[in-house]
This record gives sequence, C-alpha cells and structure tokens, in this order.
Amino acid sequence: MSLNTFGHLFRVTTWGESHGPALGATVDGCPPGVEITEDMIQVWLDRRKPGTSKYTTQRKEPDQVRILSGVFEGQTTGTPVQLMIENTDQRSKDYGDIAEKFRPGHADITYWQKYGIRDHRGGGRSSARETAARVAAGGLARAALDSLAPGIEIEGYMTQMGPHRISGARDMSQITQNPFWVPSAETATLWADYLETLRKSGNSVGAMIEVVARNVPPGLGAPVYGKLDTDLAAAMMSINAVKGVEIGEGMAAAMLTGEDNADEIFMGDDGRPVYSSNHAGGILGGISTGQDIVVRFAVKPTSSILKPRQTITKSGEAAEIITKGRHDPCVGIRAVPVGEAMMACVILDHLLLHRGQIGRNRGTIG
Amino acid sequence: MSLNTFGHLFRVTTWGESHGPALGATVDGCPPGVEITEDMIQVWLDRRKPGTSKYTTQRKEPDQVRILSGVFEGQTTGTPVQLMIENTDQRSKDYGDIAEKFRPGHADITYWQKYGIRDHRGGGRSSARETAARVAAGGLARAALDSLAPGIEIEGYMTQMGPHRISGARDMSQITQNPFWVPSAETATLWADYLETLRKSGNSVGAMIEVVARNVPPGLGAPVYGKLDTDLAAAMMSINAVKGVEIGEGMAAAMLTGEDNADEIFMGDDGRPVYSSNHAGGILGGISTGQDIVVRFAVKPTSSILKPRQTITKSGEAAEIITKGRHDPCVGIRAVPVGEAMMACVILDHLLLHRGQIGRNRGTIG
Amino acid sequence: MSLNTFGHLFRVTTWGESHGPALGATVDGCPPGVEITEDMIQVWLDRRKPGTSKYTTQRKEPDQVRILSGVFEGQTTGTPVQLMIENTDQRSKDYGDIAEKFRPGHADITYWQKYGIRDHRGGGRSSARETAARVAAGGLARAALDSLAPGIEIEGYMTQMGPHRISGARDMSQITQNPFWVPSAETATLWADYLETLRKSGNSVGAMIEVVARNVPPGLGAPVYGKLDTDLAAAMMSINAVKGVEIGEGMAAAMLTGEDNADEIFMGDDGRPVYSSNHAGGILGGISTGQDIVVRFAVKPTSSILKPRQTITKSGEAAEIITKGRHDPCVGIRAVPVGEAMMACVILDHLLLHRGQIGRNRGTIG
Amino acid sequence: MSLNTFGHLFRVTTWGESHGPALGATVDGCPPGVEITEDMIQVWLDRRKPGTSKYTTQRKEPDQVRILSGVFEGQTTGTPVQLMIENTDQRSKDYGDIAEKFRPGHADITYWQKYGIRDHRGGGRSSARETAARVAAGGLARAALDSLAPGIEIEGYMTQMGPHRISGARDMSQITQNPFWVPSAETATLWADYLETLRKSGNSVGAMIEVVARNVPPGLGAPVYGKLDTDLAAAMMSINAVKGVEIGEGMAAAMLTGEDNADEIFMGDDGRPVYSSNHAGGILGGISTGQDIVVRFAVKPTSSILKPRQTITKSGEAAEIITKGRHDPCVGIRAVPVGEAMMACVILDHLLLHRGQIGRNRGTIG
Repeated sequence: MSLNTFGHLFRVTTWGESHGPALGATVDGCPPGVEITEDMIQVWLDRRKPGTSKYTTQRKEPDQVRILSGVFEGQTTGTPVQLMIENTDQRSKDYGDIAEKFRPGHADITYWQKYGIRDHRGGGRSSARETAARVAAGGLARAALDSLAPGIEIEGYMTQMGPHRISGARDMSQITQNPFWVPSAETATLWADYLETLRKSGNSVGAMIEVVARNVPPGLGAPVYGKLDTDLAAAMMSINAVKGVEIGEGMAAAMLTGEDNADEIFMGDDGRPVYSSNHAGGILGGISTGQDIVVRFAVKPTSSILKPRQTITKSGEAAEIITKGRHDPCVGIRAVPVGEAMMACVILDHLLLHRGQIGRNRGTIG
Repeated sequence: MSLNTFGHLFRVTTWGESHGPALGATVDGCPPGVEITEDMIQVWLDRRKPGTSKYTTQRKEPDQVRILSGVFEGQTTGTPVQLMIENTDQRSKDYGDIAEKFRPGHADITYWQKYGIRDHRGGGRSSARETAARVAAGGLARAALDSLAPGIEIEGYMTQMGPHRISGARDMSQITQNPFWVPSAETATLWADYLETLRKSGNSVGAMIEVVARNVPPGLGAPVYGKLDTDLAAAMMSINAVKGVEIGEGMAAAMLTGEDNADEIFMGDDGRPVYSSNHAGGILGGISTGQDIVVRFAVKPTSSILKPRQTITKSGEAAEIITKGRHDPCVGIRAVPVGEAMMACVILDHLLLHRGQIGRNRGTIG
Repeated sequence: MSLNTFGHLFRVTTWGESHGPALGATVDGCPPGVEITEDMIQVWLDRRKPGTSKYTTQRKEPDQVRILSGVFEGQTTGTPVQLMIENTDQRSKDYGDIAEKFRPGHADITYWQKYGIRDHRGGGRSSARETAARVAAGGLARAALDSLAPGIEIEGYMTQMGPHRISGARDMSQITQNPFWVPSAETATLWADYLETLRKSGNSVGAMIEVVARNVPPGLGAPVYGKLDTDLAAAMMSINAVKGVEIGEGMAAAMLTGEDNADEIFMGDDGRPVYSSNHAGGILGGISTGQDIVVRFAVKPTSSILKPRQTITKSGEAAEIITKGRHDPCVGIRAVPVGEAMMACVILDHLLLHRGQIGRNRGTIG
Repeated sequence: MSLNTFGHLFRVTTWGESHGPALGATVDGCPPGVEITEDMIQVWLDRRKPGTSKYTTQRKEPDQVRILSGVFEGQTTGTPVQLMIENTDQRSKDYGDIAEKFRPGHADITYWQKYGIRDHRGGGRSSARETAARVAAGGLARAALDSLAPGIEIEGYMTQMGPHRISGARDMSQITQNPFWVPSAETATLWADYLETLRKSGNSVGAMIEVVARNVPPGLGAPVYGKLDTDLAAAMMSINAVKGVEIGEGMAAAMLTGEDNADEIFMGDDGRPVYSSNHAGGILGGISTGQDIVVRFAVKPTSSILKPRQTITKSGEAAEIITKGRHDPCVGIRAVPVGEAMMACVILDHLLLHRGQIGRNRGTIG
C-alpha cells in the first residue's frame, strides 16, 4: 500500500476525482493470457452504478469502462491494464456551497488542512466515486481468478441496515433480487419501508456488509504483516465510510471462551481436512485454511444529509450546512460490489504472492 | 507491508521464532538524532513480559533487548536499527506433542500445508512471542515521536474480557495499577475472579482492547489506500489472534443515522476547529482531524487450552489434543502494549510520509 | 521499482502500448500546490516528439498530453495525476511482418517466450513510445522541483555518436540549436553528415548521453540500497536500449589511482564546502555533495534496420528480416529528453524522501 | 529498493556498522525447503574475508555468520532468515583522526551534512564491511537457486586493474588460483607486481569486475522498471565505490552500428533459439534470453590512501589528511564476491517474481 496503490504483485493504483474528466485504475502485475473484455468488467460496474433505484444517488452516470492498455485480442498481455471511466454527468452547480463550508463527517476539512487545496466538486478524490475504479479492477481480478483458480466464488451482501439485522433464514438466491443485496426477501421489504421513511426525512443510515470467498485453496497469506486477514482488513478499511472490519467471529471473539471458539479438525472424505465450525473465518495464522473466508465491514451513514448541521467555513466562521444534491440515504448499499472487488483483488494478489514464494503448497496431510 | 515488513518510511521487519536463538526487529528509516537507549526500550518490553502475573504465561524470559546497530553515542544515526532479543528459556520439551498434531485455532495446520516445514516449537514464527519485537520497535517509535512531535500520548487498555465490559466510569490512572490494563479498579477485581475461575478450569477467554492516541496533529494520512485508518486496521489485524478492528464508532456505525453520527464543527477558543463529538475516531477521509485517534480490536481466546479438543495428525489420523505448557488464559492482556506499539509505529510512519509529501500542513482556517 | 512503477514517494507508473488507444503515466505522491498546466508538460514532450527532423522516426504523432486528474485550478492537489497521451497515428500495416518473425535486438522473442502473447504492433509495450510517458512525468517533476528547490537545473546532451565523440570545447548554448542536442556547432555538422550517410545505407548507430543536474542541495540519497546513484542507475538503465550507466568518472574510475581520483575539499567563500574536482559526479556514499550530479548512459544502435538479418519465426523456422517502417537511425537522439526526465523524477523523489526521514540537513560545517 | 532493503520478493535488508557490535542481513521471502547451513554461507564469506592476502586490509575478522532465524533442521522455513556477523576486531583507535576531518572520496562529509551524526569508526554504515552482509545473503540466494533452478552458475572475476586489462586468453580455472580473481595466471603475476609497488607508495587503484550468470532460463525480468538489467544496474551500483555498470556491450554500444550490434537468431539443435553473438548481454527488453547474463562494473580506487590530501574539518578549517589504518590498495578485489552475491540475489528475486506473475514461460517456439 502506498498512498493510492494497493497490492503486492497485483497492484492497483486508482486515480481521478468525482468531477474531473475521468477516473480509473492502473493495474500492474496482472497475469498474461487472462480473457477479458470491457463487457466483462462492465457487468460489475453496472452493479454499483448510481441511479439504479431510488435508494442510490440519482446522478446519472453510464460509468462506461474503457480498456486503454494491456489487453490484446481479448487477452491480457501481462503489461499494465489501464481501466478508464469518463465522467459525463458533472453537475458542478449542485455543490457550490461546499467550496467554503466544511461538511461534517466528510474529508473536506482534513483535505483542506493537509493539502491547502482540494477539488471540492463532489468530494473530489474522497468521493465514493473512486470506488468505481476499484470495481473495475475487481472485475479484472475476478477474470484472472477464474483463469488461475477456477471455482472461487466471491459474494457480498448486506446483513444489517441501521437497527435492522437480516431476519429469518438466509436465501442467497435473493441477493440480486432486491436493491439492498440482502439474502432475504422478507428483510428487503422491511428495509424498503424503513429506508423510504428515512430518505424522505432527509436522514441517512449505516449498514453492515459481509463478503464471503468460497473455494479458496489453503495456503494463501503470509506471516506476519502479509497475513491474508491483514490485507483484507486494509482493503476493506480503505473503502470510503468504512469504520470497522471483522474476520470470522470478529469483534464477538472477545466474548468467547477458548472452548467455544475452537474449530475442531477432522479428516474429510476427500482426504482433506474439514472443520467443525468456522469461527476463524477461514484464516489461521494469517493463512487460508480452505474454509470460506468471511469478512464483514461496517459502513457509516452517509454524511451528506438534508438535516441542518453546524460547521465552520474556511474563514473560520460558524455556519449551518444542509448538503443538497444527489446522495444515497444508505451508502452501504453501493459498498457491496466494492467489498467484493476488494476481496477479489486481495485473493488474486495472494495467489500470485504464494506462487512466487512457494510455487504450490508443500505440505501434505495423510 | 510485505510479508514480514511493516510501514512506508519507518519500516519495521520482524524476524525470529519462539524457540530459536533470538528474535528481533530491523528498523529502517528512523530519523536521525533521536535519543534512545536500551533501557528506554526495555520499559515497554517489561510491560508485555510473560510471567508478570498469574494471568500470563509462566515462561520466564528476561526479554532483554540489545541495540546492535543504528545508534551512536545515545542517538539514532538514521541507519537501520537492529533490536535483538535473545531467547533464553526455551523449554522445548513442553511442546513435543504438537510436532505431529495440529492444534485447533493455531497456525500449525496452515503453516504445514503452505510451507511443508515449520518450526513447531512454541508456535515458531506464529508464536505471540513475535510481538516482543513489535514492542521493541514501538519503543523506538515512541522516542522518535517524542522528538518530532512532542506531546503525543499513546495509551492502550482493555475494555472487555469475555462477557464482562468495563463497568462504571473510566479512571485512566488505574490502567497501570492492575494486571489487566483496565481503567477501573472495580472492574479489575471482577475480572480477577472471573479469570481465575476460567484459568483453573483450563479454559481461556477473548478480550477487547482500545488504543487512543492523543494530540496527534491534523493532516496525517493519505488517500486512498494510504489512509491512516487503513494502516491502523492492517497494523492491528496483523497482531496474533486479532479478529476485528474498529475506528471510532466502528461496527456500531452501521446502526447510526447520519443525524446521530455527525461530528459537528466549531471554532475553538485557540483558533483551531473543535468537534461536538468524535464518532469518527479522529480520522476523516483517512486523514487525522486533530481529535483523539481511537482504535479498538478484538483478541480471540487463547487457542491453547487444557480442554481436550478433536484434531488430526500430519498423517491424517484423528487425535485428541490438550495443549499443555505455559499459556495465558487471556492473551488479550499482553496485546495491550502490542497495540500501543503498532499505534506508535503507524503514527510515526505517517508523520514522516506527511513531511515527505507535504512538508507541513498547507491549509489554514480562519 | 515494481514492474511498471518507479520511485519511492514520487511514484510514476507508466502504462500503454505503442499502438493501443493511449499511453500515459499515473503519478502518485506529487506534492500539492505545484503550478502545472498541460502546456508546461507539452514543452518537454515536444522535445522528444518524433518527426522533428529527418534523423528521427517520421511517425507523425502530436503526442498531446492531457491531465485527467490531480490538478485543480492550475495546481496539483496532492492526489494522483493522470497524464494521458492518445495514440493517433497507428499505421499498423507497416508492422505486419513482425507478428511472426522475431526482430534481432528487440524484445519480440523474450516477450513471446515469457508471456505467450504480445501486442506486436510497433513493439507494443517495449516500444520507445513508452518513454513519452516518462517525459510527461518528468515535466511534472520539474515543476515540482521548481516549487520545492528553485534553482535546480537539469540538462542532457549527446557526447558521442558511434565513433565520433564531441570535439572541441563544449558550448552549452548550442544544445537546443541542433537536432542532436550536442553542445558544439562543429560536432553537429560533422554528425549530420555521418548520420545521413548511415541512414541512407539503412544502418543505425549508438550514442552516449550525459545528463547533469546543477544546484542540487547536499544530503539527497540514502544508504545503502536507496543511494542516489543506485536509483539513477536504475532509472537510466530502465530506458529502452540503454546498456550502461556511469556516475562521474564512471567506468574510467577503474583506471585511476586513489591519488588521482581524490576530490579534495576546501572551504568556499560562502561558507560551504567546495571541491577541487568532481570525479565523484556529485555523489559520495550515495548522498549528494552539492556539486553537479553527472550521469552518462550509452544507448545501443536502433535494432530496426534495413539491412537483412537472420532470425526465426514463432514456428521456429529460419527467416530473414528487414525492418521497414519509420525508425530513427540513432535512437539515442530522442533519449536525451528521456534521460532528463528520469533525472528530474529521481531528484524530486529523493528530495521528498530526504524531507520525510530527515526534515532538513542536520549537520553544519564551520 | 527502500533505503536499506533490496529486492521485490526475495528482500534483503542489511544493517550494521563497521565497528558496532554486529552487522547482518534480514532476508524475507526466501522459499521454504531450501537446504542451508551456516557452513554453506561461510564459504562465500571466506572469499571476501579481509586479511587473506597482502592486497586486502589486514583487519582480522573471522566474519563468522550465524543463522538466527528462519531455518529449522537444516532447511529454510519460508520465514525471515536473520544472518548475523559479529564484529570482533574493532580497533577503533586507528580511526581517531577521522572523527573530525572528512576524508576525500568518502561518505564522511555527506553523512555528516545529512544526518548531523555518524558513527565515524571505520566508516560506520558506509564501510565496505556492509558488503559482508550482502555476501551472506547471496550465499542463501545461491542455495535457493540450486534448489529452484539447478544448473545456474554465477561467476565473477576481475578484468582490469588500473591501466592493466587482462591479457591473453581467459582461463576460468585460474580465477580461484590467484588473489585477484583474474582468469589468467600471466595477468595475475603482472598485477601482483603492479599492486605491490602501488601499495608501498601508499597509493591505491581502481578495478573492473565482470560477473556472468550462466544457464539462466529465458523469461526473467519485466517491463519497464522491473527489467532484469534495471535491477542488476541498481544492485551493482549500490555496492560501495562502484561508479559504472554495463550490460553486454555496455558503454561500447554507443560506438556500434545496428548491423554490428545485431545478435542474429537461429534455431538450435535442441529446439531452442541460439544467437550468433551476445552483444545484448543476455537481456532483451529487460527479459533474459537464455544466453549468459554479462554484467560489468567499475570500482573506484580506495579513497583511503597514505598520500596526504587536502580537506576540511567539521569546524570548517582546512586540514591535511593521511588515512592510516588497514586499507585495501585495490578494493575492487573484494568486490568480486560481492558482485556475485548481488547477481544471485537479483536472479533469485526475478525467478520468484516470474513465477508469481506468470507461473512458467507461456510462449513456445517451433
């Protein structure tokens, strides 16, 4: 990680501001021979696209990705892949007020203090729009994973919105059937009502997202600062508005006894270890066990709300601010595909790192 | 972060196994002219030393640090500082059983699968003993912070042990007065009883630790993968047994509305911004606000317990394991100084990064 | 350095192929507040632009740079600067033959062996066109240097073309007055004749380039792998077709005695050290002395020539190849602005690194 | 490269000063399962050991390496390997004068200016003693290469001492038969006389070293800043006293025509490409061709000479200095094993990088 770059071998550098001419991801270190087209990446971008429901910002951006380099005749060449998304709907006027006033909960004040200059339009670099570049890079990472380690599945979904946890049994087939990526039709209905009320009142709310990676081979990750969970924590925490990250039991691990927390080990019918439970979230000592990798993260409520809030101006004067414009009442919704993208990038990166140092797993059991 | 290295400019590489000849930290990029002695570092090591109470492992290690390089006549020279701790109490016999059996919840099985070889004695590289090297590096980081940005205070403490949260008002003066680093005399008494019962039953328990950094100047941290909170999340998650990391409101942010979560901004009497609250945990857009930086992390219960657990051997046979030896019933206790050390390293690293790219904060308010 | 990224804090990632839609440089870590416009960068690109004389490739590229991010109202914001150059003159037909035959001296065969896929059009990623992105990044680095350390001058020129060294006294004012960037009108005339003959015969020739940085403050660079000369060597050797790099005396240092090589030190009238000579090329122990930093590098002759050469095809069959198309008879000419750009990037990067670790020079003399 | 760290995946951080308690190399990223003992590394250290002939410093250091971590039961475990060499012969008194006076050609003055503090004893961090740590790391790299890519041979030798180039045919069997590592018995005799005269006069002389790596597979290296030659240039230039680095034809490439420089390609009897010559030095486009990799570097004459030289003191007063103590009249001699070590580290690092991104070469010919 180095300012705007993420990853060890599969290195993603995102660039661009919310209201500049374009933004994108420069991806270095992608394996060659991965089949990829703009359409394959667009699929994922369309999932996080604004304006798809009344619960996300009404900004109309086609968010059309272009591959400018590193792909030849439909395959990656092993050279840097430039994924560019042009900004087309830049209604700067909506944001006039925030050039002078610092929005509470936003990066306005810290960017100003640090840099002494900032592109205030739409949050500039700190806008959630930056995550579009991550999703594009994640699309490429998924394609590379399909090529290198077929069978890996990465799926994200919301498990909580404000005070409302997902209720009832989880039905994964529902995830794509509602605007909240929640694996429960019943919960989706409940949340729709809740969020509609909130939205009308000009308020916003936080959310909890869980991302699972299935069929990840054991052996990925490395001690002690290159742990798989370390990189996942960094990856998720780097997403705008994320305030907490958990692996497996997560914060609840503080409440367990060692007896309760033990994932006992048995020999599976296929000659591979199986575990009685997955408190560990698929990672032991920073290295994947072969179980599902389970990460959760909390997204704070959108800071831009229609409720008046106290703040100050650049000149240091007290002011009241209402953030008009087009904002998501629950920005956590659009964080779901972003969390998936980060998971894909981290797992691919560690696959490459593992192959680099080790080649393939060296220890056999049985 | 690169396998065993942590940090951008203040780069710490830890090395060594639990039962090898020595372990340590190679620290590159330390500013020159920092006054440092072995004693100044030893203070912090003594805080995490095993055998200080009946609640920590009875392994008797003096954990004596030696400075092998990078310091001349009591000051850092700007060249790499080698901090070495020799291992003196290596009772390898205690650990014989685990050469063949994988302990549930430990890195035994994943290290074996990945590397095909591991120093099983005491957990080898994945032992909590590795954190001694972090604490040594953190001691150096604290001295550098004292030199570069006097006034920064870093303090860690436990806020929860198993089901028991800290109760009553916090009294920071109590932190060093009990074996749990808990800022409450009353809670300390309660936890002592609870842990003693647990220990006698051969069980263990998890814990929650909070680390606060006070008087950190605004402006530290950088978008979007070099955020201060991103690096803190990685730093804390890289500590053995940590399963979750939170900044400010943390996971609870999922439950808040935007109205509740807003830290309103006012002009302080000293001409600097003040905030009505600190839901953000001192970081906005990845950059410090000048408020207290508040991080929490959850430590899972010690996996080594006297309760028999099911596992398998390297040959794939079913086996029962009881982990004898000297183990902490609540490894979270000793994680407190480790969390402080990581906080010190991250903040120093970002001070240097900030100075490198920016020089000093460029934006003025008022 | 990591595949396509260069630099520690001022990090340049170049991307793009010769005949793809675009190429560019993603620049991370640029200080904020640097005044920069597309025109200021264009000046440097125009210097290396093809088609400016009959001695450079007749490919007509406007090489127009666009700033897509990181600049707001004419100043850098401290966020990533994306510098994009669209490819407009992609006459792919000229290059048909090389899809199957490997050109001797080119990266065709090694790219094929490694990646199993390559964009053969115009050399793809290994084309000298990649250096346009470096020149753009160098333009930004120069602007940042002007802002941070005014007075630094970076100047490159050719000192040898094939067997012909620069003759007579050097006249720096001549550098921009001839197509060879040679500081001698007399030599320029001589080289023009020589190169014209060579070009007509379908041959090519190598060159030696010297790049000097003046008024660089003492103290830049760091032991032992972050030496200023180490990074300069890497920077220059990374330029296409470069086969050797020298600092100060360079390879000739092998022939000197210690007595001859000593740069004796005296106290200057302005209270700063002065040296009797500059065999060291401005660097001692990897750290700048304050003298001129002098780097030389050798560029091999263009491998694409009209002389038939023996090679093989992808199918392993023997073949003869003549590389038609538009090629420079002396690619070293266009390497001059590239060497300057790399010098600018390295010095800026080390200025930032120095400021990060040290702040400002700590030792005084006198 | 980051100050004191070298390498992408096989990362070597050296630490320690000439006259501190110890120095060493922290090696991260070594593949597991490599058979290694202290004796296997000692072999290489003994080659560069001081005091082996009258042409090298008479400092008597056993330079005994200890492996402190990362090796278990004779094999690497994949965790960091700490290689420590204790300093035993620290005759600090010899160096008293240089605490105040800056030795011309040494890093004394630049270290002082930059850091404001330096361990002046024996040059401290900038001492050639640092290269012992490189040689130790190189010994480990060689063992790893033997394990991963058996057949690779790395051999260094001197080709020039002052004005005297190696004369006559090269006889590689002679390299270890004379104190100069020169592949010619005749030249060795000549150089012995020359150097003896020089030594008695208190003077010193430069040298040219060539390092060859044979049987390196094609495909190692990556565009455009991770080129194999880029990293070799950095590796060699980072060695103390090196002033120039060449690959293949090196600086002489400036004098060649394209016709002369072309390495024509044919199909070998074993179905692999062969080349008519090796002007390229085994690298095309930054990627190995399978030919011998040929690197040369020039080492300046030892700056510590018995001839009086003009300098200044820390107080800025003019002074004359004669550097007494134990110094090599031709420090280039001891640079030979160091150059080999750097070659081994770079090739291993690129083998791992290649395996990480690509797995194995993907393109076939024929």
